[in-house]
Amino acid sequence: MLKAGIVGASGYTGVELTRLICRHPGLELTVATSRQYAGQKLAAVFPNLRGLTDIICENISGRELAGRADVFFTAVPHQTAMAIVPELLTAGRKVVDLSADFRIHDPAVYEQWYQAHSARELLSEAVYGLPELYRESIRGARLVANPGCYPTSIILGLAPLLKDGLVRSDNLIIDSKSGATGAGRGAQVGTLYCEVADGFRAYKVAEHRHTPEIEQELSLLTGEDITVSFTPHLLPISRGILSTIYADLKTDVTDDDLFARYEEFYKDEYFVRLCPPGQLPATQYVRGSNFCDIGLKVDPRTKRVIIVSAIDNLVKGAAGQAIQNMNLICGFKENDGLLNIPIFP
Amino acid sequence: MLKAGIVGASGYTGVELTRLICRHPGLELTVATSRQYAGQKLAAVFPNLRGLTDIICENISGRELAGRADVFFTAVPHQTAMAIVPELLTAGRKVVDLSADFRIHDPAVYEQWYQAHSARELLSEAVYGLPELYRESIRGARLVANPGCYPTSIILGLAPLLKDGLVRSDNLIIDSKSGATGAGRGAQVGTLYCEVADGFRAYKVAEHRHTPEIEQELSLLTGEDITVSFTPHLLPISRGILSTIYADLKTDVTDDDLFARYEEFYKDEYFVRLCPPGQLPATQYVRGSNFCDIGLKVDPRTKRVIIVSAIDNLVKGAAGQAIQNMNLICGFKENDGLLNIPIFP
Amino acid sequence: MLKAGIVGASGYTGVELTRLICRHPGLELTVATSRQYAGQKLAAVFPNLRGLTDIICENISGRELAGRADVFFTAVPHQTAMAIVPELLTAGRKVVDLSADFRIHDPAVYEQWYQAHSARELLSEAVYGLPELYRESIRGARLVANPGCYPTSIILGLAPLLKDGLVRSDNLIIDSKSGATGAGRGAQVGTLYCEVADGFRAYKVAEHRHTPEIEQELSLLTGEDITVSFTPHLLPISRGILSTIYADLKTDVTDDDLFARYEEFYKDEYFVRLCPPGQLPATQYVRGSNFCDIGLKVDPRTKRVIIVSAIDNLVKGAAGQAIQNMNLICGFKENDGLLNIPIFP
Amino acid sequence: MLKAGIVGASGYTGVELTRLICRHPGLELTVATSRQYAGQKLAAVFPNLRGLTDIICENISGRELAGRADVFFTAVPHQTAMAIVPELLTAGRKVVDLSADFRIHDPAVYEQWYQAHSARELLSEAVYGLPELYRESIRGARLVANPGCYPTSIILGLAPLLKDGLVRSDNLIIDSKSGATGAGRGAQVGTLYCEVADGFRAYKVAEHRHTPEIEQELSLLTGEDITVSFTPHLLPISRGILSTIYADLKTDVTDDDLFARYEEFYKDEYFVRLCPPGQLPATQYVRGSNFCDIGLKVDPRTKRVIIVSAIDNLVKGAAGQAIQNMNLICGFKENDGLLNIPIFP
Repeated sequence: MLKAGIVGASGYTGVELTRLICRHPGLELTVATSRQYAGQKLAAVFPNLRGLTDIICENISGRELAGRADVFFTAVPHQTAMAIVPELLTAGRKVVDLSADFRIHDPAVYEQWYQAHSARELLSEAVYGLPELYRESIRGARLVANPGCYPTSIILGLAPLLKDGLVRSDNLIIDSKSGATGAGRGAQVGTLYCEVADGFRAYKVAEHRHTPEIEQELSLLTGEDITVSFTPHLLPISRGILSTIYADLKTDVTDDDLFARYEEFYKDEYFVRLCPPGQLPATQYVRGSNFCDIGLKVDPRTKRVIIVSAIDNLVKGAAGQAIQNMNLICGFKENDGLLNIPIFP
Repeated sequence: MLKAGIVGASGYTGVELTRLICRHPGLELTVATSRQYAGQKLAAVFPNLRGLTDIICENISGRELAGRADVFFTAVPHQTAMAIVPELLTAGRKVVDLSADFRIHDPAVYEQWYQAHSARELLSEAVYGLPELYRESIRGARLVANPGCYPTSIILGLAPLLKDGLVRSDNLIIDSKSGATGAGRGAQVGTLYCEVADGFRAYKVAEHRHTPEIEQELSLLTGEDITVSFTPHLLPISRGILSTIYADLKTDVTDDDLFARYEEFYKDEYFVRLCPPGQLPATQYVRGSNFCDIGLKVDPRTKRVIIVSAIDNLVKGAAGQAIQNMNLICGFKENDGLLNIPIFP
Repeated sequence: MLKAGIVGASGYTGVELTRLICRHPGLELTVATSRQYAGQKLAAVFPNLRGLTDIICENISGRELAGRADVFFTAVPHQTAMAIVPELLTAGRKVVDLSADFRIHDPAVYEQWYQAHSARELLSEAVYGLPELYRESIRGARLVANPGCYPTSIILGLAPLLKDGLVRSDNLIIDSKSGATGAGRGAQVGTLYCEVADGFRAYKVAEHRHTPEIEQELSLLTGEDITVSFTPHLLPISRGILSTIYADLKTDVTDDDLFARYEEFYKDEYFVRLCPPGQLPATQYVRGSNFCDIGLKVDPRTKRVIIVSAIDNLVKGAAGQAIQNMNLICGFKENDGLLNIPIFP
Repeated sequence: MLKAGIVGASGYTGVELTRLICRHPGLELTVATSRQYAGQKLAAVFPNLRGLTDIICENISGRELAGRADVFFTAVPHQTAMAIVPELLTAGRKVVDLSADFRIHDPAVYEQWYQAHSARELLSEAVYGLPELYRESIRGARLVANPGCYPTSIILGLAPLLKDGLVRSDNLIIDSKSGATGAGRGAQVGTLYCEVADGFRAYKVAEHRHTPEIEQELSLLTGEDITVSFTPHLLPISRGILSTIYADLKTDVTDDDLFARYEEFYKDEYFVRLCPPGQLPATQYVRGSNFCDIGLKVDPRTKRVIIVSAIDNLVKGAAGQAIQNMNLICGFKENDGLLNIPIFP
């Protein structure tokens, strides 16, 4: 068993990583850090873990931390990650970083949307951890930048169309909706039950920090410099992202044509499930799983295609994809520990 | 007191009409029809009405029905409405029809999206019941076609921009999300609690029947023939529609510029509330009220404006707007019976 | 118009008081205090109030506060209230206090369940503000202690049975369930959307602070010293309390017998709605209203009666009942400003 | 691999059985029946299963059905089950029946609460499938009556207390709350999203059919003839049952004392998790898992103990417990296929 550590175990991504690691055939959770809950059992913080792990939250870092596991998942906020990751790498550890700190290749872009970067030298080394696009690079990496939740749903939804040049790249509109786990576990009025339940809103319109990440990856798919409209919304659900994507078709195609292209593009991908023409994804059908479901519909009236993709933001959008990346780095089967079937209802 | 009748009282629009009529200073509910619940107290079907009305559901029609009230709200499915409305008009009654049957001016368009129309002669007479645009025509009407829920949120959101020619009319993308009351009260597996809760999906992508209604009204605003992309989604909430609308700006403008235009356009409108720059609407802030909240955000990166509008689909999107129309027809104050403040949380 | 002030306007009770006062025929909101949001418009804190009030939150107290209104609603935590209320009374104002500070007549009992009391001298003067039991005393009061949300639902549910001596008083079991607004608007992990949604739990079992309040009032109804089992639970809804109450019948009675007793007991009460035998209340049928719905069922197998009562905890359980009390104090009609029909769905 | 069949695969229990069987190390799903969806892929009915099973719903019965698998899960309504099960047994198959038809040992009691029984001869043979109490009998059974969801949560919660005679058996009060999957997948107005969401109600008070099942098992634990008060409620969640149980203590005990008894009683039970004194269960901490979480609290004021137990009604309350029973019958490890960790949030 490979020893795995979670840095930042007391957030929603932390508990989900723990859930997955506890049932992974080749990983053993040996260290979990949390400043806030140091000294407490993780299963007391998250009683769903009761009886399943004895791990105790610790407030350690640096060498002490690095010595406690072979591989690390860093599930801390951006800016915090860039301080921790270099130490772990220096100590010879492999890291899947779930923050935004190593996703943007261009430090200038990163600094424009976030803040100054203190580990710029790692940006060129870090591999963007979307296995469906970068599997081989990930295998050899020591630092994987786990993609953002929104970008995962969007890039997987658009990749076949952009790669094949089927749609215009200058008029992409992306309307995404996320469950409330995406807002984290911090104590804030805005994410109280009574503020979110039975309601719906857009937020950070035209200024969400996932925008440059989406644009970087879409641009790499086409070789063009792509700018998108991206609007996130907050859904009154805990888990799930659904992205509705509008693209202008360059030629006349049918649903069947496009479905065939997607089938070809994703034919070897276990975690991408395509909805046959006439069917569309829904967040409740991927809940708790690492699947990304994709459906599409050609609108001949407007010569557009509407792509709809759905993921569980905590799994394929965070912890599950991190495990998938770690599986690749460590030589496990890619879906080890990720065979959970979506829970419905 | 004017005597008011509800045709189709046992749906969600019916109970909402009843709630509003019971507190209207000038209306008295004298007849409520329902085939399914004929003979039962409406307050037994909807216990929220317990103690507030003694009205009993009846299965009557034609002359008998017409004789029971001065004004009628027809809250029945399309195709059913076109059979009932002419009889009521012939008997000299005024009607606000909440179905789709009299919203589309061009019978060919209606028949393309719905089915054959048996009362075509009324299409030119019926007034589209969006008071913010057609107040004067409504005042003199005997038949008002109450707008669809989605179209209400969309047309109000776009009207100032299109009227002033500030955005391109050939690239409008409308991503709307509705609560489950929009699907009605029929017993169907698809709208069971466990199918809708904790989930989210798109439906009828590029083929929803509100599309021609939206296009008719946007075209009338500009004089151009407008085609839009319209995607409805099902939210796990009971009430509320939020529409996110993407439009290409023709010129450089700021949020403040556009806000000023909207303020001017809606300066006399009680039921339209504008969100100052930096703020955006949410469905929970209009719940139970007849308000339409509108906010917007200019994205200089893409030269687009994103408009977000929110209504309670059962109020401004159905029963409340119907009362507003009836107020105009009958000479009441436009907001009589519609002063409910949104309930939050 | 009488000038009304809200002390503690930025909690959920505060916004609900504001909603009700804004539509009250005889009250005008002239001052609203909030430390946290001082200087901000209340309608910016709670956008459902957008356009409906221009009131600005202020951080004032003492004489300055007292000078700004004729009557006050104090919606602050216990212990804070006991510092504010005496000053307002001294200045000649009338007060409905929504905290627990003046509900318990016996200071020793109060101090056992809460903490030391700094205004003990007011305990004997304060009137327990349940109009259905204490209407006449309330009319003459200058300080009304607005009942707790749980106690309101429970006392109204049990009063007819206990008053008539129909059930044993030594074996009362009360199982209550409340929506999340009951936990307030403080930023806490425990009431985040993702902690509450799609879940259910008991809390403070056998130690909730509403217990002595319930016992005081039930004891006063019977003249006996009553001890109850009271278990609160947290529902994944925003508004609503449903209490299920188990009582041992002293004699053989039927549902019809008991229903008749309740009808007699509550025959003049506008805000108590009784469910006929065979029907039971539900929180969604009182949402947004000041009604308390009560139903019951005799179980001949166990010789028990099960009473079920439902209220909206923010209305009849807090702000609405406070308005009802103020109406009595100030000589308004008891249901002025409280005619809202429950919103369903 | 043992061949497994599901009779009645298109209900919520059916999809959950499928989810579990698909990941069971020793079972292979070879037949799934559904009248309504005959000829359709089960994964089209339940898109969460997309890509995970190719099984097609069939409308077969009798010998044809029996020939298609080694072991059967019958997930059909009561009365339907009693017609199907004998045929399967006659054909030499093993059956876990998830209906109520074989849970009640006394046919007179069954017929009093349900209807006439056409397979009375099997009542004495059928083993009540609560492994924590009847493990050895289950191992040798060919027909296991899988317990009801409410009874599972209640019997496990009370067993240690009753077995040890620590509480009075004549004053048990059980207040249970269930998610909406318990109401099944039939198209009914009462379980529509808008009827259940944001609401809460009691139903079938003092007359729910699980009552005789609960009383049978509690009576068997004590040797006394026990009658209980049992009140079910409908929660606005999909999965989960929480039962709050009130029992009168015979002697002075502490939380620690009782916790120790429970620990001893359940010391070898993988699926029972005890909450240490001061902690209580919640439905969200068992979601998707086969665990039953139990906590308790002694109330010295009333000399009662309040026990709180939580299960996922579709897993430990239905499909999961059925797998657990099948594991025992077929010689698998008892937790094979049941290692899912609860999903939170």
